[in-house]
Amino acid sequence: MKTIVFGGDGFCGWPTALHLSARGHEVVIVDNLSRRAIDAELGAESLTPISSIEERIAAWHEVSGRTIEFVDLDLAQDPEGLLALIARTAPDSMVHFAEQRAAPYSMKSAGHKRYTVDNNVNATHNLLAAVVESGLDVHLVHLGTMGVYGYGTAGMKIPEGYLDVQVTATEDAEGNPVDPYPIDQQILYPTNPGSIYHMTKVLDQHLFAFYAKNDRLRITDLHQGIIWGTNTAETKQDERLVNRFDYDGDYGTVLNRFLMQAAVGYPLTVHGTGGQTRAFIHIQDMVRCVEIALANPPEAGDRVKIFNQMTETHRVRDLAALICEITGATMELVPNPRQESPENELHVVNATFLDLGLQPTTLSEGLLLEVEETAKRYRERADLSRIPARSLWNRTTHEGVPPSLAGTEAGAAGPAAVPTAAGR
Amino acid sequence: MKTIVFGGDGFCGWPTALHLSARGHEVVIVDNLSRRAIDAELGAESLTPISSIEERIAAWHEVSGRTIEFVDLDLAQDPEGLLALIARTAPDSMVHFAEQRAAPYSMKSAGHKRYTVDNNVNATHNLLAAVVESGLDVHLVHLGTMGVYGYGTAGMKIPEGYLDVQVTATEDAEGNPVDPYPIDQQILYPTNPGSIYHMTKVLDQHLFAFYAKNDRLRITDLHQGIIWGTNTAETKQDERLVNRFDYDGDYGTVLNRFLMQAAVGYPLTVHGTGGQTRAFIHIQDMVRCVEIALANPPEAGDRVKIFNQMTETHRVRDLAALICEITGATMELVPNPRQESPENELHVVNATFLDLGLQPTTLSEGLLLEVEETAKRYRERADLSRIPARSLWNRTTHEGVPPSLAGTEAGAAGPAAVPTAAGR
Ligand SMILES: NC(=O)c1ccc[n+]([C@@H]2O[C@H](COP(=O)([O-])OP(=O)(O)OC[C@H]3O[C@@H](n4cnc5c(N)ncnc54)[C@H](O)[C@@H]3O)[C@@H](O)[C@H]2O)c1
Ligand SMILES: NC(=O)c1ccc[n+]([C@@H]2O[C@H](COP(=O)([O-])OP(=O)(O)OC[C@H]3O[C@@H](n4cnc5c(N)ncnc54)[C@H](O)[C@@H]3O)[C@@H](O)[C@H]2O)c1
Repeated sequence: MKTIVFGGDGFCGWPTALHLSARGHEVVIVDNLSRRAIDAELGAESLTPISSIEERIAAWHEVSGRTIEFVDLDLAQDPEGLLALIARTAPDSMVHFAEQRAAPYSMKSAGHKRYTVDNNVNATHNLLAAVVESGLDVHLVHLGTMGVYGYGTAGMKIPEGYLDVQVTATEDAEGNPVDPYPIDQQILYPTNPGSIYHMTKVLDQHLFAFYAKNDRLRITDLHQGIIWGTNTAETKQDERLVNRFDYDGDYGTVLNRFLMQAAVGYPLTVHGTGGQTRAFIHIQDMVRCVEIALANPPEAGDRVKIFNQMTETHRVRDLAALICEITGATMELVPNPRQESPENELHVVNATFLDLGLQPTTLSEGLLLEVEETAKRYRERADLSRIPARSLWNRTTHEGVPPSLAGTEAGAAGPAAVPTAAGR
Repeated sequence: MKTIVFGGDGFCGWPTALHLSARGHEVVIVDNLSRRAIDAELGAESLTPISSIEERIAAWHEVSGRTIEFVDLDLAQDPEGLLALIARTAPDSMVHFAEQRAAPYSMKSAGHKRYTVDNNVNATHNLLAAVVESGLDVHLVHLGTMGVYGYGTAGMKIPEGYLDVQVTATEDAEGNPVDPYPIDQQILYPTNPGSIYHMTKVLDQHLFAFYAKNDRLRITDLHQGIIWGTNTAETKQDERLVNRFDYDGDYGTVLNRFLMQAAVGYPLTVHGTGGQTRAFIHIQDMVRCVEIALANPPEAGDRVKIFNQMTETHRVRDLAALICEITGATMELVPNPRQESPENELHVVNATFLDLGLQPTTLSEGLLLEVEETAKRYRERADLSRIPARSLWNRTTHEGVPPSLAGTEAGAAGPAAVPTAAGR
């Protein structure tokens, strides 16, 4: 199986590339290294020391005897190069991670909003148009987010992408009025994204639906929860293979930032009441899910396959409490810079991956290891001034929250709930 | 009232600018003249002779004594210029026509698909981000399309943007299983766009929903049917003010192409069985609708106001029959290059504009005038080789239809129905 991993230098893409390579896939990594450039822009850095992509690939060859090809290419900017690459490599499948993925970063300024929309929409659309143009039958697996669902609906579990609804018909086939009768439909779950970043994943969904219908492309969209954990079986094998651990206000997810605060003996800063519920999945389970998705493609002509890729949900304050328990840290409540509901429930269907054999790593088991092997191990490298989130969602949150207090909970990829009906 | 008309050199934008100027709006036209460049690319031209934008504006000043400012600016490419313009002019409202709007053009090649997505998404998003950045309270009226609804649902009228649905809940607020109970919701109508162009209008919808919610922008989205007719009360006043009449395979709508064929004594070429139903509105009614929408803005914090901007629906073959009756032309059935259902019903709610005072021009009244005043009057300028549609929707339609036969029905902006359930 030949597989291109777009965004294969990133936090999810790199361990996925290694996981697939270890299992015999012929892997090509495509990345424009923009995530490294954003580190420079933000003056931030992964807590773990990240080698250059060339060193990473060389180390993997040393450790495993396997070869990964790297292509430096911008999906959004170089459609011709992209088509040439697809034609040359003729892959069986592609995994698409190559997007700007931090919600706070996407809200920093008008320029950051524009970059996120332009980069993500064009990256995804260029990929789809290139597959059609190539004439090849390639299975595309995309990393989406649980955040497209927004709030969910009280009383209902969030289904895997499609929602059963009933509408009321009042006409017969010729348009004459008749007694109202119900019609059952299955629709794409009405979206309610909480940031520009999450909104780009909503736009992606509609691009996929169109190309699956019009061109019979085979597409799987993984609605992923917030990843926790740093390393997988492969990235642990050599320090040059180590994965990113982001803890800054833009890219650090809620869990990493709590871990970092705990490791350096600071109180954990929880936004608002900490009542927001988020969905999580361990990085080792993530790479396994991608492997499972690749092994179970849709047929040409099928609608987009959507899986919920998460294994547990937690309220932010419960997560903080769990980390306090393990580490002895304390917690502190600060105002929330996000435009969102202070408390929300989140119940999610994730049956497909469980049925296909996924055996989840649970937070309560894995968290201690994460504290010891990552946060404490590298804490000398930490720059604590980078932890606070400085992106505010709009004028209201700008007025309500002094930037210095705009705390550290803003996870980069969870569903950001807002106090409006789902589907608005 | 100060109003910026984005895309004000185009088929809809120009008569709208004049209509608003005649009614006392201080009008600024912003356009990058890309539509004129596309004419050059396609080797096509409006049947009516179009003056330069400078001549048009000078003629309007002569005729009416009123001044319109013109700014040559690309919304998708020059966000800084856009912000500066908004800050300098401080408009009360904006009308946004500045997108690539032909479905066949959007399907011509991978490059045309990419251009349409990149241009339309970035134009709309840059506008939204700039309004937020400017800090001004501006009402934005956008021209969307009936085509976002796709097929509609048999037995139901298409509502104005939002659909009432019922979902079945099975849990109480804490997530414990209970007897199933129904929950009523109102959601954005599930979309089913028939081309890349129509899909960009779906993406626009989600951009609007986000900015209305997160930044309390005031936005009205007009889901417009296919425009027919060429001139309005203002564009008739001087030949230098005349509006476009496109009849080529990419930009010519179904009606214009029938009119052109009739005017030169050719048979009207109808795709498939001609059973597709489309929604129509006269150009004079369109400019009036925009004026009405501007006078009835939503409040800050409201969801996006969506109006269906159409006044009648017709099956394509009935339209052809009507024109044959008026002109004595004949009709001919040719294979359909589009991926769509051969026959569809279309019932549409358009109560808002009627309630607000719109008095529609009907096709049966206005069509004869259109034949005489436009198609016959300028028929010497026609290049008949431009009439056939050469864009095929995908590999299937590529195989099924020889390009020479890919007939002339492909209207540029109607709902292109596809044989899948709405909401896929
Ligand atoms: N990390 C999470 O918790 C999480 C949760 C849900 C979904 N996701 C999704 O998974 C995907 C990967 O996330 P991540 O955490 O690995 O992010 P990341 O930023 O670490 O990795 C993304 C990679 O894509 C590359 N890239 C971005 N734009 C590109 C372009 N135009 N051309 C080529 N390369 C480009 C970047 O350089 C980077 O290496 C994203 O789409 C994200 O939305 C992540
Ligand atoms: N004509 C119809 O039947 C119809 C039907 C439904 C909806 N609409 C919508 O109405 C709007 C106007 O349609 P039209 O028929 O007048 O099309 P048009 O192509 O004649 O006009 C669009 C104008 O926008 C300009 N433009 C495009 N991209 C731009 C950019 N990036 N920056 C600045 N200017 C740009 C073009 O130069 C052109 O003058 C479109 O959004 C279209 O989707 C039209």
